[in-house]
Amino acid sequence: MSRLVMKFGGTSVGDVDRIARVARIVAAEMKPGRGIAVVVSAMSGETDRLVGLARGAAGEGGNGDRLSGKAFDDEYDVVVSAGEQVTTGLLALALRRIGVDARSWQNWQIPFKTDAAHAKARVSDVSKELIGPSIDSGVVAVVPGFQGVTEEGRITTLGRGGSDTSAVALAAALGAERCDIYTDVDGVYTTDPRIVAKARRLEKISYEEMLEMASLGAKVLQTRSVELAFAKRVPVRVLSSFVEPGAPNPGTLVCSEEEIVEKQVVSGVAYSRDEAKVTLLGVEDHPGVAAEIFGRLADANVNVDMIVQSEARQEGRQNIVFTCPDRDAPRAAETIEGGKGKIGVEEIHIRRDVAKVSVIGIGMKSQVGVARTMFAALAQKGINIEAIATSEIKISVLIDAAYTELAVRALHTAYGLDAA
Amino acid sequence: MSRLVMKFGGTSVGDVDRIARVARIVAAEMKPGRGIAVVVSAMSGETDRLVGLARGAAGEGGNGDRLSGKAFDDEYDVVVSAGEQVTTGLLALALRRIGVDARSWQNWQIPFKTDAAHAKARVSDVSKELIGPSIDSGVVAVVPGFQGVTEEGRITTLGRGGSDTSAVALAAALGAERCDIYTDVDGVYTTDPRIVAKARRLEKISYEEMLEMASLGAKVLQTRSVELAFAKRVPVRVLSSFVEPGAPNPGTLVCSEEEIVEKQVVSGVAYSRDEAKVTLLGVEDHPGVAAEIFGRLADANVNVDMIVQSEARQEGRQNIVFTCPDRDAPRAAETIEGGKGKIGVEEIHIRRDVAKVSVIGIGMKSQVGVARTMFAALAQKGINIEAIATSEIKISVLIDAAYTELAVRALHTAYGLDAA
Repeated sequence: MSRLVMKFGGTSVGDVDRIARVARIVAAEMKPGRGIAVVVSAMSGETDRLVGLARGAAGEGGNGDRLSGKAFDDEYDVVVSAGEQVTTGLLALALRRIGVDARSWQNWQIPFKTDAAHAKARVSDVSKELIGPSIDSGVVAVVPGFQGVTEEGRITTLGRGGSDTSAVALAAALGAERCDIYTDVDGVYTTDPRIVAKARRLEKISYEEMLEMASLGAKVLQTRSVELAFAKRVPVRVLSSFVEPGAPNPGTLVCSEEEIVEKQVVSGVAYSRDEAKVTLLGVEDHPGVAAEIFGRLADANVNVDMIVQSEARQEGRQNIVFTCPDRDAPRAAETIEGGKGKIGVEEIHIRRDVAKVSVIGIGMKSQVGVARTMFAALAQKGINIEAIATSEIKISVLIDAAYTELAVRALHTAYGLDAA
Repeated sequence: MSRLVMKFGGTSVGDVDRIARVARIVAAEMKPGRGIAVVVSAMSGETDRLVGLARGAAGEGGNGDRLSGKAFDDEYDVVVSAGEQVTTGLLALALRRIGVDARSWQNWQIPFKTDAAHAKARVSDVSKELIGPSIDSGVVAVVPGFQGVTEEGRITTLGRGGSDTSAVALAAALGAERCDIYTDVDGVYTTDPRIVAKARRLEKISYEEMLEMASLGAKVLQTRSVELAFAKRVPVRVLSSFVEPGAPNPGTLVCSEEEIVEKQVVSGVAYSRDEAKVTLLGVEDHPGVAAEIFGRLADANVNVDMIVQSEARQEGRQNIVFTCPDRDAPRAAETIEGGKGKIGVEEIHIRRDVAKVSVIGIGMKSQVGVARTMFAALAQKGINIEAIATSEIKISVLIDAAYTELAVRALHTAYGLDAA
């Protein structure tokens, strides 16, 4: 007996015809001795509609007080979770229509438990007791993504994009051989194909690389779902929901490093334009000043990424450069400005036309000269590096945003990633 | 401690503003020592939308086989029941927004159990164990109407209009003092106010009378809900959801006969134009022929109402007249035609331009001359009676449909029902 979990997002189930197509894709995966569970999102647009209704009922746009936080979140979850319930019933019907035995399972029926942090719940315990034997007997299970039920039996949601996480959690609970995430791209690419025509689909990528890719702006899989897959060692395959059912559709397998025989030094080039560079000139140079600055920024919910510290021309002073998401930049400046007396900063500059470009690869761990290749390639194109950050499997540089495409193309070529 | 159940239909919760209004109506009913549960329908139009999706997924309008019956009904229930779930969350939010403590209860959380006859389930057992103490503590419960959960934990629906039944069943389980059904009319009238300007709202009406009124076409309350209220002795009040919250809104109380001190001989005049008259001439007159005819009609799902038998001119023959809903008439004729050899009928005539007019009143039981008043009033207007049927609390006559309004007005006056 083997088990497979398949997941389809909102556009894949956007109308009745697409749901019928999903049913055919599921049918093509059926074989003797394999139990199948399918996780579905709400039909595209539906969650937005329900969110709008919940906000309206809570007083948004009206006069007077508006509900928020705990007074809002539990019932928001009740309203919004109805969207996926509808899709489960529709897909079960579409499967039966083509002769596949199927039934829907709501999360409270499984049960698929989460903590009680409404609107952003975390999966706590998924039971295989009922659903496992059911799928093993040949009945396809259709399960709503994005939601769960608390220990006390109330409905929760996992937050936007939580359906990938639902699928991985269910796959882990069922001990599935794999979790297939059907999406609108046919896999994970060496870089953004809109920028580099010679970008290649990767056959395999490690969890660690995928995490770096996801958090750096390659929005194929939700970061949380990759973290969970990594922790539970669930192989995840990303593949297209627009390929003809039954036709070849290899996608990209996200798996353990050990399963990747030919480890690339660099597997991919990622970029993000949503960056701002904050420069603090003439910061007093005494112990605790960095803790003071970054403590204040953390309190203000500014998500700091790269940090570069250097001596200033004036003695007893230093310069500090850091990056944060572009939308956080004004708040970051205000926060520093507000603490000027205590921090002792002479000047604050913000630059918002910057981009972060990164090369990622597990092969880096055992390879020297990776950074040199990067810097040489950028220098050759006359691109100035404003900051550098590295991890074991990643090197990121901050550059002028105008050079983003040029940098990505140059690095893609320099690391031998271009398709033949 | 007392308890109250309130129910609001689809138009009353049709949008966020109307839901806010319902919240104010609920708030106006709150008082110390009273626990409140509110039963809601799906927002108007929503159930139709979901039914359309379910039928589409099941293959309606497409090529090939279409799912129906058991292969359809359980997942149809999953899809369609999502509509009420959304309303429960929205009303809970709207209540909280005006400072009323509230939460939604899905049927599986209560649990509100039904049998497993999907799409037309019957309520089997409603638990007060969790919801009772919760409302007694001052938290308004918002419950989806129209649906339930089976012993095995699957979602069911009660069939169209089942929300009234949900409300009455919940009121019975909670031992509520009353079940208030908010609707688009402000009560039960002596007759249709569109026909008789002098129609009066009844302050009280007995369950038996209401049952006759409901089944005769006064579509205020669903017949099933009145039957359940009668069986469980739940006082039901029908009142308007469009009166200003807190303003006088007496409605009509549907209650036990014993609670009605001044029993009217006739409480109301009902009519139905959805009737057809089938005349069978020259039917062989021997034992068992009626059983043969009406047995065949029952098998063909023809809902026969009035039956009149009379001797034919020819010896050994009789004439039989019966009525049925207009839509059943062609099927009735076919059925008889198909059995002509066995039944021995000479001629079959159908008349579809007929109407049934009825007078209803529990006072009839102890009063003579009620029928005479009816026949005299109709005769005075020159209206011919084509068939008569009576029960303990009702007299119905079949007349030419063209005279419907005239007959209703004449009877309303004859029984002293006109408003001053």
